[in-house]
Amino acid sequence: MKDGLETRLHVASPLHEAATVAVSEAQAHYLRNVLRLGPGDELALFNGRDGEWRGRIETAGKKAATLTLVEQTRPQREEPDVWLAFAPIKRARIDFVAQKATELGVALLWPVMTRRTMVDRVNLDRLTANAIEAAEQSDRLTIPEVREPEKLDRVLDLWPDDRPLILCDETHAGQPLAEALSGDHLSSAGHVGFVIGPEGGFAEEELDRLRSLPFVTPVSLGPRLLRADTAALAVVAAWQTMVGDWR
Amino acid sequence: MKDGLETRLHVASPLHEAATVAVSEAQAHYLRNVLRLGPGDELALFNGRDGEWRGRIETAGKKAATLTLVEQTRPQREEPDVWLAFAPIKRARIDFVAQKATELGVALLWPVMTRRTMVDRVNLDRLTANAIEAAEQSDRLTIPEVREPEKLDRVLDLWPDDRPLILCDETHAGQPLAEALSGDHLSSAGHVGFVIGPEGGFAEEELDRLRSLPFVTPVSLGPRLLRADTAALAVVAAWQTMVGDWR
Repeated sequence: MKDGLETRLHVASPLHEAATVAVSEAQAHYLRNVLRLGPGDELALFNGRDGEWRGRIETAGKKAATLTLVEQTRPQREEPDVWLAFAPIKRARIDFVAQKATELGVALLWPVMTRRTMVDRVNLDRLTANAIEAAEQSDRLTIPEVREPEKLDRVLDLWPDDRPLILCDETHAGQPLAEALSGDHLSSAGHVGFVIGPEGGFAEEELDRLRSLPFVTPVSLGPRLLRADTAALAVVAAWQTMVGDWR
Repeated sequence: MKDGLETRLHVASPLHEAATVAVSEAQAHYLRNVLRLGPGDELALFNGRDGEWRGRIETAGKKAATLTLVEQTRPQREEPDVWLAFAPIKRARIDFVAQKATELGVALLWPVMTRRTMVDRVNLDRLTANAIEAAEQSDRLTIPEVREPEKLDRVLDLWPDDRPLILCDETHAGQPLAEALSGDHLSSAGHVGFVIGPEGGFAEEELDRLRSLPFVTPVSLGPRLLRADTAALAVVAAWQTMVGDWR
């Protein structure tokens, strides 16, 4: 029997003792043709709700495969509730943001169209596929929600008032990140969000509106200019370090 | 006159009042054929020692260009002294580490060959080119030093005893990163280093040696498995946030 246990697949079905689970056509192909796994081989499954389970392959056809669940290997547990709203950027970099943000535990990815956003279409299927793959590889028990792109004004209208929104302010006008994250307001928040502008930065009127909102905290990420994808990653890593589940 | 002032080039020559500076053949090509700049246009120059200067193009040929320095726009200033020792990874990801580490202010990039490192050759020219480009774009006044790859044992033999080395310990055996960075030992260190293992992790005997060294602090980066490039970025961002020049 091959050891497929380092393989983890995200599935939609409920997972419970002795359940039979069908995987997608793409996953069946992957198991059979890429990993060369077949009946009797085992791997890990998770669905974002029922923890992680060890499953044994029962049937492995070209277009379909089924597994029977053997045992739960990890219970579901609470994860940090971090939202990342970001102006979409070009292909390789947006893939990168989806992958890295998922590894770092982001719960929601929300593309935001701003005045200076140069990308007018976001491939949500691709964004989701990148997030799922990163969740499978990083031992996460959930996958991030991926939202439809919205204009910045609409995102701010929809933003829940009780969720602090940290604005990565590339004009260096914000307070130092560590200071913001140590404040009572943010260090105790069980849920939080970040907003990252496009490569050209937010427009002045966008910054004005953001800064005027009571739930927004502008922060500065040091003296160097960071690319949008670097800023996204850095701010989430710092939050996980100081406030989130790396503590 | 075109505004080339968002263009920053790293040069080797000394920079001082009224100096005439020749750029490299590749830079001359870039100025003329990519940016379409010519005599009279201005851009920014830095060399890692003499601050940032505004220079005016005097001659712009196919293979050579010269500039006269007009004025210093920023003085040189001290930068964080962070070393990043990392097991080399495949092409796109190593480019990424060089770029992002440079944006985040890393002073030295040092490829480290470990037992499970799958990459046996590092293209140092490419690593350096990525670092220089990121320094030019991120408003840095220096470029990171790029060292020749060494085996892990040799890196540890050469490591200065007085420079704390933070080990990103993927076995989760280390202390939480925030706790380590808040300790007297690390929060006051003017210089520091990080070591990141290969995708397969450090071998047990490598971890044993690392953990036995008095200057090494193992840290844990939370409950998820991070890819090597994500870990590198995350730990440097957290250090800059809590200890470095983002404070």
